[in-house]
Amino acid sequence: MTTFLGSNQYGKAENRVVRIYRETDRHEIRDLNVSTSLRGDFDEAHTTGDQAKILPTDTQKNTAFAYAKEHGVTSPEDYAIALGTHFLDAAPAATAAQIRVEEYVWDRITVDGSEHDHSFVRRGTETRTSVVTVEGRGDDQKVAVLAGLTDLVVLKSTGSEFKGYLKDGYTTLQETDDRVMATSLTARWRYDLDTIEDVDGFDWDGTYESIRSILLAAFARTHSRALQETLFVMGDDALKAHPEVAEIRFAAPNKHHFLYDLSPFGTENNGEVFMAADRPYGLIEATVTRDDASDPGSAWTAVPAFV
Amino acid sequence: MTTFLGSNQYGKAENRVVRIYRETDRHEIRDLNVSTSLRGDFDEAHTTGDQAKILPTDTQKNTAFAYAKEHGVTSPEDYAIALGTHFLDAAPAATAAQIRVEEYVWDRITVDGSEHDHSFVRRGTETRTSVVTVEGRGDDQKVAVLAGLTDLVVLKSTGSEFKGYLKDGYTTLQETDDRVMATSLTARWRYDLDTIEDVDGFDWDGTYESIRSILLAAFARTHSRALQETLFVMGDDALKAHPEVAEIRFAAPNKHHFLYDLSPFGTENNGEVFMAADRPYGLIEATVTRDDASDPGSAWTAVPAFV
Amino acid sequence: MTTFLGSNQYGKAENRVVRIYRETDRHEIRDLNVSTSLRGDFDEAHTTGDQAKILPTDTQKNTAFAYAKEHGVTSPEDYAIALGTHFLDAAPAATAAQIRVEEYVWDRITVDGSEHDHSFVRRGTETRTSVVTVEGRGDDQKVAVLAGLTDLVVLKSTGSEFKGYLKDGYTTLQETDDRVMATSLTARWRYDLDTIEDVDGFDWDGTYESIRSILLAAFARTHSRALQETLFVMGDDALKAHPEVAEIRFAAPNKHHFLYDLSPFGTENNGEVFMAADRPYGLIEATVTRDDASDPGSAWTAVPAFV
Amino acid sequence: MTTFLGSNQYGKAENRVVRIYRETDRHEIRDLNVSTSLRGDFDEAHTTGDQAKILPTDTQKNTAFAYAKEHGVTSPEDYAIALGTHFLDAAPAATAAQIRVEEYVWDRITVDGSEHDHSFVRRGTETRTSVVTVEGRGDDQKVAVLAGLTDLVVLKSTGSEFKGYLKDGYTTLQETDDRVMATSLTARWRYDLDTIEDVDGFDWDGTYESIRSILLAAFARTHSRALQETLFVMGDDALKAHPEVAEIRFAAPNKHHFLYDLSPFGTENNGEVFMAADRPYGLIEATVTRDDASDPGSAWTAVPAFV
Repeated sequence: MTTFLGSNQYGKAENRVVRIYRETDRHEIRDLNVSTSLRGDFDEAHTTGDQAKILPTDTQKNTAFAYAKEHGVTSPEDYAIALGTHFLDAAPAATAAQIRVEEYVWDRITVDGSEHDHSFVRRGTETRTSVVTVEGRGDDQKVAVLAGLTDLVVLKSTGSEFKGYLKDGYTTLQETDDRVMATSLTARWRYDLDTIEDVDGFDWDGTYESIRSILLAAFARTHSRALQETLFVMGDDALKAHPEVAEIRFAAPNKHHFLYDLSPFGTENNGEVFMAADRPYGLIEATVTRDDASDPGSAWTAVPAFV
Repeated sequence: MTTFLGSNQYGKAENRVVRIYRETDRHEIRDLNVSTSLRGDFDEAHTTGDQAKILPTDTQKNTAFAYAKEHGVTSPEDYAIALGTHFLDAAPAATAAQIRVEEYVWDRITVDGSEHDHSFVRRGTETRTSVVTVEGRGDDQKVAVLAGLTDLVVLKSTGSEFKGYLKDGYTTLQETDDRVMATSLTARWRYDLDTIEDVDGFDWDGTYESIRSILLAAFARTHSRALQETLFVMGDDALKAHPEVAEIRFAAPNKHHFLYDLSPFGTENNGEVFMAADRPYGLIEATVTRDDASDPGSAWTAVPAFV
Repeated sequence: MTTFLGSNQYGKAENRVVRIYRETDRHEIRDLNVSTSLRGDFDEAHTTGDQAKILPTDTQKNTAFAYAKEHGVTSPEDYAIALGTHFLDAAPAATAAQIRVEEYVWDRITVDGSEHDHSFVRRGTETRTSVVTVEGRGDDQKVAVLAGLTDLVVLKSTGSEFKGYLKDGYTTLQETDDRVMATSLTARWRYDLDTIEDVDGFDWDGTYESIRSILLAAFARTHSRALQETLFVMGDDALKAHPEVAEIRFAAPNKHHFLYDLSPFGTENNGEVFMAADRPYGLIEATVTRDDASDPGSAWTAVPAFV
Repeated sequence: MTTFLGSNQYGKAENRVVRIYRETDRHEIRDLNVSTSLRGDFDEAHTTGDQAKILPTDTQKNTAFAYAKEHGVTSPEDYAIALGTHFLDAAPAATAAQIRVEEYVWDRITVDGSEHDHSFVRRGTETRTSVVTVEGRGDDQKVAVLAGLTDLVVLKSTGSEFKGYLKDGYTTLQETDDRVMATSLTARWRYDLDTIEDVDGFDWDGTYESIRSILLAAFARTHSRALQETLFVMGDDALKAHPEVAEIRFAAPNKHHFLYDLSPFGTENNGEVFMAADRPYGLIEATVTRDDASDPGSAWTAVPAFV
């Protein structure tokens, strides 16, 4: 029996890159958490300890910060594409580079009704995410772009039911046609780059905002017979509005809100008082795909299951 | 030598009470994390195991949920006052009850430009906090009310300096007249109830929003020679605008943003690229007090140091 | 263009199942965090809202708790296999069930030199993990078993170097032949069930302990020219000692310990005072595989990238 | 109305100081999280922005690292006393310095039955804590020392009851004479320095280990009629064995383990299957004091409520 090195990657995780644009008095801020990783022919580093082909994670860190200035951060996706492409040049043994970016959003502080030029407050809701994978070199180089969000916490106080499900000897749940439905949504969508004519000019920020709004509106508008149905509508709406999106994946914990039993105290509770539970939670994961979606290639490699 | 029971309290922590108002199609939501505790003559429970005077934490939990309906939640403070007063009646051995409430804020989801009636998204920025202590009975009963917020994350990309400080043999820090200043603010203020004519009719929500806005505006507007100075201005502004506030306490981690050295790569960095650091952080804690402030009594007992 | 449901799964996550064995005065405890999920033909639940094929996550929860008694918990793996097999019977539309179990270990409290019968203290180091996937029915049914651990935090205060690496214009790191190396190890190994004659009688607990010890000893003994090399030796040692293991995957953050510069204070620092950093960290991920490893099938489906 | 600066302090929090002793091949490691803070006459820093009296938090950080070498870390308490005393010399405007230290414990990795010289694994159970406050100068200087631990997770699978408690209209809890009792203990004790003849030679580490063992044994041995009773016995035992301890404070969440109802499935559950709940939890806080305890002075100032 012999052993060998299987799939592997290495890089620098969670570089907290903050980029300030200050060409005018009205500053702009892009606040990122950047993780880089390289894959390829790195066997000797593992088996003989020879590091000659290894571009150190420290160098990757330096580059992530330097590129925030040298290339700039007009969007997480544009910045990640530049960084990934660079690493394939810098590390000849690498066959692919994956760049993950989380972005934290800041709003301007309002003073006397006006937005302040250089003072900000963290919006603090969801985190925007991006995963860019660059593979190959020259004419064969392929770029895959995932965008998404995590920790978008939403709740419907009515308009949600759950009934007609399969029952067995371990079933105790009562059917309901009015419940609270809440989740902390994670979504990732894959751009079909073949449908994007000019990646350099693509409106990554605007598309993100549009899809986010579509997801929220679909959640609100859909009378839900299950969280599964709601997710499918959300994905379907997003794909129909954005032909440049090939597929979208969701992970949605069903954050249970249990009606608190007030009857021992002679008090009615008509859907008014709930206990929000931590664990366990339902976990619904689903993909909605366009039937003419391009091949994903390595877009999802090493991305956490589902999303 | 003998030993005896010193200061003590007990209760149920972190009841996740969600109250939905659904009298009309336009629902309202109050989403709370409620902790209750009782202090008093509970020696036997500790020394002999006799629980006769103990109102169980399970009963406190039931009461917290029942009161969300029976008394209602018009504000965290009003709800906490009702709950605290009740516990002194329910537990004769208790000399004081302290109710802590955290509130998570939800916004309505916008669909086609309109706010939805019953679908919400967590705002997700700061958490609103309240600590109410009710002490004594009958005419001697005293109520103390703290309000506040935590995790309000703010940043100035300029307008902050730090120089002229004390130096010794362990000093390596360079003086600067332009740096990023950022903090995750915790603030608690104590209401001077003697100046509030009718507690039942007091606008707890409106006052909270007003003070929050004042703190943000002061942070934005102040040219800062140190985080200490900024905090003092914030507190001073809040006290001057709200005579019903006796004092305000701050805890503000100085979340360091280090200018990344790009000179080895031949790149200038004129305050444009920073590394946001996790630890260590400066921690600035300060109280701003009105000179005619009422006596705090037990308002701050068992509240974490400073805030 | 039409859309369709792609890969999906649903279940109940993080059931905190605690099983006490109390047949004798000397109690035993198994403390688990159990997540279940089903995959299969659940299109209608998503596209039309029809839940007829859905075995609710609430029922899955009930079953997880009931099986802790009805089947028992002799090991996480044995319990998970029983649960996964059951769910394929209970949910005819399911094509696969995946059961994830985390186990928290408790030690007996020592009183006067003896281990107490029913009082325990959480060991609190690493968490043991297991992922079992049951696919198909009858003679075609396949079972895949992953075991592993997470958060095993280890450190070498010497015996680690890093030099001879690739350099470019963004390189500032100095080579070193003596550094602190520390990681919080996650490892998952896949059992080659074909080499295990009797799964019912297999010593899951003993094998886990053996592999854990091998990993620790290899970390300690190996003079490290890079974290990559250390991981490879750890995996190689484990595979050589355990022919019933087909492959092992690692994710190892390089938890940097930076030598603190004391020279401005006239103090030497010969590898004695370090600052442990939080972020960023190197992240090394690698798989070591046996050349005659069985086919993984769906063993790794929906398991987080690498481990 | 005028406002003024009330109580305040500032410092550097969470310096992750790792000290390696490597005089021989058998290395020793002390792994600390150090927070320093100064109190005193710092009004100008707040009110006029003048930083002339401020010893920057960056300098405090440098000093914390330098002292790990220059003074050394024989115990968290000894190191903290040295650091606190130094800061009063370095910052003339300071009236007090408080040093908080958390220590993470490492065990040696065992290889072939022997403890390795320089490879360690994090024990990962409780964190050891220490808070030292140095106040005044010269002959009037006072030192207060708190020691303790946090996150010591313990559980009894029997030997715990809860009955005979006060009942009211919100009571639904059933009395029980056999339940699981579990907590994640935080304890802090104050040393009576007057009873310690030579602080420099005091065995801080040995005393810590002794008190930790006493607390565990008392938890195990005590038949508990309430968590309150168990805590009192633990404190009483510690004080009786250690006359150099003046008082001990506990905060103990009652981590509920609910008997899972298996009767709908025809399965008995005689205290064998429990659901471990996250929130809410009971929270029991108590102090046990020696009747001849010395005055605490400012020992507990700015220490979180109870512990």
